[in-house]
Amino acid sequence: MTDLLWQKPGVHVDERIQQFCAGDDVILDREFFLFDIQASVAHAEGLQRIGILDADELSGITRELDALARDFTAGDFVLDNRYEDGHSAIEARLVERLGDAGRKIHTGRSRNDQVLVATRLWLKDRLAQVSALCRESATVALARAEVEAGLPLPGYTHLQRAVVSSAGMWWSAWAEGFIDNAIRARDTLAWVDANPLGSAAGYGVNLPLDRDHTTQALGFGRMQLSATYAQLSRGKFELAAIDALGSAMLDLRRLAWDLSLFTSTEFGFVALPPQYTTGSSIMPNKRNPDVIELMRASYASVAAGRAEVEQLLSLPSGYHRDLQFSKGAIFHAFGRGIGALGLLPDLLRNLEWKPEAMRAALEPSMYATDLAIDLAREGVPFRDAYRQAADPARWSEGDADASLAARVSPGAAGDMRLEVLRERLAALG
Amino acid sequence: MTDLLWQKPGVHVDERIQQFCAGDDVILDREFFLFDIQASVAHAEGLQRIGILDADELSGITRELDALARDFTAGDFVLDNRYEDGHSAIEARLVERLGDAGRKIHTGRSRNDQVLVATRLWLKDRLAQVSALCRESATVALARAEVEAGLPLPGYTHLQRAVVSSAGMWWSAWAEGFIDNAIRARDTLAWVDANPLGSAAGYGVNLPLDRDHTTQALGFGRMQLSATYAQLSRGKFELAAIDALGSAMLDLRRLAWDLSLFTSTEFGFVALPPQYTTGSSIMPNKRNPDVIELMRASYASVAAGRAEVEQLLSLPSGYHRDLQFSKGAIFHAFGRGIGALGLLPDLLRNLEWKPEAMRAALEPSMYATDLAIDLAREGVPFRDAYRQAADPARWSEGDADASLAARVSPGAAGDMRLEVLRERLAALG
Amino acid sequence: MTDLLWQKPGVHVDERIQQFCAGDDVILDREFFLFDIQASVAHAEGLQRIGILDADELSGITRELDALARDFTAGDFVLDNRYEDGHSAIEARLVERLGDAGRKIHTGRSRNDQVLVATRLWLKDRLAQVSALCRESATVALARAEVEAGLPLPGYTHLQRAVVSSAGMWWSAWAEGFIDNAIRARDTLAWVDANPLGSAAGYGVNLPLDRDHTTQALGFGRMQLSATYAQLSRGKFELAAIDALGSAMLDLRRLAWDLSLFTSTEFGFVALPPQYTTGSSIMPNKRNPDVIELMRASYASVAAGRAEVEQLLSLPSGYHRDLQFSKGAIFHAFGRGIGALGLLPDLLRNLEWKPEAMRAALEPSMYATDLAIDLAREGVPFRDAYRQAADPARWSEGDADASLAARVSPGAAGDMRLEVLRERLAALG
Amino acid sequence: MTDLLWQKPGVHVDERIQQFCAGDDVILDREFFLFDIQASVAHAEGLQRIGILDADELSGITRELDALARDFTAGDFVLDNRYEDGHSAIEARLVERLGDAGRKIHTGRSRNDQVLVATRLWLKDRLAQVSALCRESATVALARAEVEAGLPLPGYTHLQRAVVSSAGMWWSAWAEGFIDNAIRARDTLAWVDANPLGSAAGYGVNLPLDRDHTTQALGFGRMQLSATYAQLSRGKFELAAIDALGSAMLDLRRLAWDLSLFTSTEFGFVALPPQYTTGSSIMPNKRNPDVIELMRASYASVAAGRAEVEQLLSLPSGYHRDLQFSKGAIFHAFGRGIGALGLLPDLLRNLEWKPEAMRAALEPSMYATDLAIDLAREGVPFRDAYRQAADPARWSEGDADASLAARVSPGAAGDMRLEVLRERLAALG
Repeated sequence: MTDLLWQKPGVHVDERIQQFCAGDDVILDREFFLFDIQASVAHAEGLQRIGILDADELSGITRELDALARDFTAGDFVLDNRYEDGHSAIEARLVERLGDAGRKIHTGRSRNDQVLVATRLWLKDRLAQVSALCRESATVALARAEVEAGLPLPGYTHLQRAVVSSAGMWWSAWAEGFIDNAIRARDTLAWVDANPLGSAAGYGVNLPLDRDHTTQALGFGRMQLSATYAQLSRGKFELAAIDALGSAMLDLRRLAWDLSLFTSTEFGFVALPPQYTTGSSIMPNKRNPDVIELMRASYASVAAGRAEVEQLLSLPSGYHRDLQFSKGAIFHAFGRGIGALGLLPDLLRNLEWKPEAMRAALEPSMYATDLAIDLAREGVPFRDAYRQAADPARWSEGDADASLAARVSPGAAGDMRLEVLRERLAALG
Repeated sequence: MTDLLWQKPGVHVDERIQQFCAGDDVILDREFFLFDIQASVAHAEGLQRIGILDADELSGITRELDALARDFTAGDFVLDNRYEDGHSAIEARLVERLGDAGRKIHTGRSRNDQVLVATRLWLKDRLAQVSALCRESATVALARAEVEAGLPLPGYTHLQRAVVSSAGMWWSAWAEGFIDNAIRARDTLAWVDANPLGSAAGYGVNLPLDRDHTTQALGFGRMQLSATYAQLSRGKFELAAIDALGSAMLDLRRLAWDLSLFTSTEFGFVALPPQYTTGSSIMPNKRNPDVIELMRASYASVAAGRAEVEQLLSLPSGYHRDLQFSKGAIFHAFGRGIGALGLLPDLLRNLEWKPEAMRAALEPSMYATDLAIDLAREGVPFRDAYRQAADPARWSEGDADASLAARVSPGAAGDMRLEVLRERLAALG
Repeated sequence: MTDLLWQKPGVHVDERIQQFCAGDDVILDREFFLFDIQASVAHAEGLQRIGILDADELSGITRELDALARDFTAGDFVLDNRYEDGHSAIEARLVERLGDAGRKIHTGRSRNDQVLVATRLWLKDRLAQVSALCRESATVALARAEVEAGLPLPGYTHLQRAVVSSAGMWWSAWAEGFIDNAIRARDTLAWVDANPLGSAAGYGVNLPLDRDHTTQALGFGRMQLSATYAQLSRGKFELAAIDALGSAMLDLRRLAWDLSLFTSTEFGFVALPPQYTTGSSIMPNKRNPDVIELMRASYASVAAGRAEVEQLLSLPSGYHRDLQFSKGAIFHAFGRGIGALGLLPDLLRNLEWKPEAMRAALEPSMYATDLAIDLAREGVPFRDAYRQAADPARWSEGDADASLAARVSPGAAGDMRLEVLRERLAALG
Repeated sequence: MTDLLWQKPGVHVDERIQQFCAGDDVILDREFFLFDIQASVAHAEGLQRIGILDADELSGITRELDALARDFTAGDFVLDNRYEDGHSAIEARLVERLGDAGRKIHTGRSRNDQVLVATRLWLKDRLAQVSALCRESATVALARAEVEAGLPLPGYTHLQRAVVSSAGMWWSAWAEGFIDNAIRARDTLAWVDANPLGSAAGYGVNLPLDRDHTTQALGFGRMQLSATYAQLSRGKFELAAIDALGSAMLDLRRLAWDLSLFTSTEFGFVALPPQYTTGSSIMPNKRNPDVIELMRASYASVAAGRAEVEQLLSLPSGYHRDLQFSKGAIFHAFGRGIGALGLLPDLLRNLEWKPEAMRAALEPSMYATDLAIDLAREGVPFRDAYRQAADPARWSEGDADASLAARVSPGAAGDMRLEVLRERLAALG
């Protein structure tokens, strides 16, 4: 390993302890290394604006950081355990290439605000992805809601057949749900869109850092003002981001549950294209909807990331090394989460209904509620109508299409108002 | 118990099972009974607008619901296990007082959307309280940041003395934090501000319910359109609300940690007025900061409520009885959370610094970072300056006031920019 | 409220703060009040043995504590907010009835060890209940496994039909599972079976307390020796108890999932007696398996209790008021958990299979694995046999009974070895 | 990638989906690859015993599996994404080297029981490590408790100085705690010590698998009998193992908290050797106890692993692909957990008390409880004695050594009974 930035002469570093402390930090840092480089450029620009770097030093640093980003992307520079972490690697590279100019890069910053800003940029990027994937999923769902508005589907409560529903109602539910999820991801992005760079170790520095410049250069919506709060926001902002992701993943889990049931032989309402299924090592007959199951399971990884960050945060103010473990946690949560969400739009496009099975699952009892309300409309007090309609003798083979057409309460099959959802979606950009 | 709404002749109801199913539902329903009544009025108005109720029936229902609310508030009506739940109690009362008009109240609605709308109104109310308490706490913190801007306080990282900080920086951190928390509670309120009433059991009804009217009458920002999504949002919206509460509670936990340390004899930076402390049953000498500890502990109850709701949501779409347990969970989370946040503004107003102890805890090493940066400003590359400043021989008794004044990076003691926070706070209304 | 034990003259007690601190403590304390009284008797006996109480004082205290327990059980003594908590109530009652002897009861103990011992006795009682209910459930499952050994049931993986299984295999799975759960509850009971009484506030006292006597008198398996560890075990032991409960509840959740599917019309394998179902307020046709769903949902309450305790435990050693919140958490977890487990044996006894539907769900593909293995037995390498058996042309209507009889791997239908489970169950006593 | 075991002709495999499904499975499988190989040997032996393999085939398979284990350990065989997972890699290697004999290895087993048995062996190994590390930590603590029995240390409740305690009492608390943790790990090991191999996909096979042989050959304590329960135990047993680890980690978290406080300048009771501290990138003066903090933080990773497994388990019986995600979860939890526990014994050995600072933190009020009890011993009712001892006028500079010597309640400084702990520890072997 290169020398530790803070190493003092005569202090023996125990390898086992060092290993425990460093952990897989340097590997994890690959995840946001490009953001760390980007923020380092902005920091260097800021230093030049207050006279710590001259123009030549800045241009050298900028050039070398650009080269480092290119080398890293191309695989020519590997971030590995030659370095204590990604932050040290950047400084080491600049020192190696530029000498004193490299030794100046860390003026006025701490690894504390360096990791904060890289994480913040990464979180913003991931929340934007989550929002985009939710929008795309909602778009597909909305399109299919329109096309399949009249296709009858049994409606369940308690997994028991309840009333006639429709593919259109099913699709519009997910459309509205993923619009909400997109909004939440967008709102959360705005909420965390605050620049912590320039807060140093949580107490600022005796330099007039040009934080307005770095805020603008890095595209932040605002400066995170208080140096001490910047530290307090570590973990807090990560949790908010995970919560927003989790909202989409909860809906995905329920959607996957529906598909898990609907693709069973017993329900048999949905067919998945073969690429969504896998086989068994022992049972030659099996085609299993593994993708659906892993999409459902991915919420667990989001919950794991959340638990890991949350457990770290019972601390006094100020930086504590505990917070380092929040990095792997968000990578795991978003890695699995975006992995699953990324497959959703295509899955929604590709799933095929089996209309005959859906119609076959409708039964006379499922029109009893319609009947009770018909009686109520004619003046029978509902509670009495309910009792009359509870008599199986009054149930008969119903007309599913008529039932759907008559379901005119706003948001039901007879009055879906998809245009409202279309407008909300359009407003999301 | 009054007859069950759905009871069928000849079906024996096992008491032990009934007890397990009902649980403490009817007790819990007290928490949002007034909102249930309010939504019932709006529902009745909607029914009158589509001809299910006539004007007399509506006025009877409205009158009796108002009376029920008054009786409940006054303690003259007790919601207890004579009823299956609060929803049934409302219908039972109307039937008792009005006969057939009462039997009509449930036309076009299910207990599924009834509980959704009552919960939604309750969540909005609680999020508004959270937001207001965060704003109030931020206001106090900001005021004290201004007054105590120059009061030195040791700044810690890793609980080790790091650099000179100030009471002003400490206060401004909480000010910015609670402004963020207030924003999040407000944004979340807007996100959940959707009317589920009129979605019935998740599939709508064959009546042109006037959902626009109920949306407006109940003060919702929008209609939750899809009847099926209304059911999917149960738990999902609750979690979002708890997340927003949790954000404030995480900050409160860290603040309470600071005070727990600062009120120890070892730190000794803060004195709490006697009403914030209690005694011991065995140790005559003790005055313990129990309030601080219970504020810190209250996050656990928020986490518990979150866990309870989250664990329920691995389900296919449609209503499932599992979701009933989400009620007690949010009451517990918000009960403890708002209980703790409600004490915060006064606590912040009343805590007293002990300036002498704070100054006594400053030591020469805490100026080493200033020194390194001073050298850097003079042209020594920072990494070299750092090494020079690491030499204890160069440390000396510093001037805390000068150190704070020189800390001019935006957001640090020398340039706190409290006016920016003041504007953000004002923008919150 | 009666005077606070620790109240100092001149200190104003703020009612809002007092309310926040006391919370619903005194209500919660009802849950283990009898155990608190029982431990108080043992403590008094111990005090008499070391000369702090004389024989008359002890007999007075014992008599009054017995009377208090009787009054409490009969409802003649109500533990309410006249008292700070249950511990104070006991002392107040003794002082009221006995004067100085009552004022001596708290000699050498703190509310810290008082609450520990009452909680410990309560936890032991609840774990014994969990263990007994698991044993009873396993007994029912084992009996039905024997009777219904040959009843074919489709076996699923990924919710897809896989191979022929049997009711016997389904039952024996739960039998073995609940035997394991009973063992874990019993082991956990033994692990927490340590007497904390006599540890005072965590540092012992300057009296030779007769802890051997109280350990024996209260039926503890061992003394929890270190006074400081007694405090550290608060929460830790509660978590272990919740974990053991959770193990049973996880199995119950999966069992309830099976029944939720099996009672759907689509699967239709199981019928529940009517007392296990409820109706809908709007849909006259519905009979819903609410009990099953609430049993499934009860795990969420166990998880909530766990989360609440766990979140409290990021603390230095020594007592902190945060720990008070662990009380409500365990009551909630065990209340819901034992409520659900308590219904399980009868549910298992009462559920009815629908053999025709079960047989109707068997299909030719489900014999493909048998076929592949038959080929393998004849010498075809399994991987080749698998490929041959994957050809639907080779599938035909199979004989479920023969398939089950041939499934002779130990633990499968052809060799269930129920006697092994019967022995394990018997060994549990 | 090699051909998928279950691939059917004509089915296109979508790479993005394949990538999502496989995830990092094959990388994770490295963690227990040796156990998978070991179980494959036992399985092959069993197959030979029932005539599926002949002696030559078995000896070929055994030889090649041994070679594979050696190659893997030496780094000559790399388990990477040429394979779908580790299970497939084993079969592929055997087929490549042995042809038909290799194609027979999977006879009568499924990847479902293959992953179960490998995981089970791995869990047993890790629980044994946890137990051993807890025993070692307890041994160190017990030794230091004896040596430092008389060294006074302030005893705290609510982080407020309470009574005089001692290093001996502090050490004995951890000794007893880690003995309990070792017992729990050992009990849990015994609880999960059940052989699932031979349960196939959850329904057994039509072969008389010699499960008694594999149970014995792999060193399992018992057979996990029911094939269906074997599947139900996935996740359930993992959780139990994490819970046992978590118990130790909770104690470690509290111990780390103590050290975090004790190494602060304000407390100043403990010095850590330099190898336990690191520096800052910006503050030249800092030596931070990062190791302590990361040990404290490691509980978060255990909690994350727990959350991930727990969230997966809301499922009907039978295998579901969701369960795959439990693998990474346990590796993460035990990786971090054992990493932290592994440093504990040396840390305990190496930490140095600062006796002067400890004595300097004792103050007159800390003898008030002794005084109250002295009065009680003389006959003053304790509640009155408490009030008298609450008068600061009665407090005076006490004698810490005398206070400790007089603290004769069993488990306190005057009667620590370390021999009891020594016996419990010895009984653990």
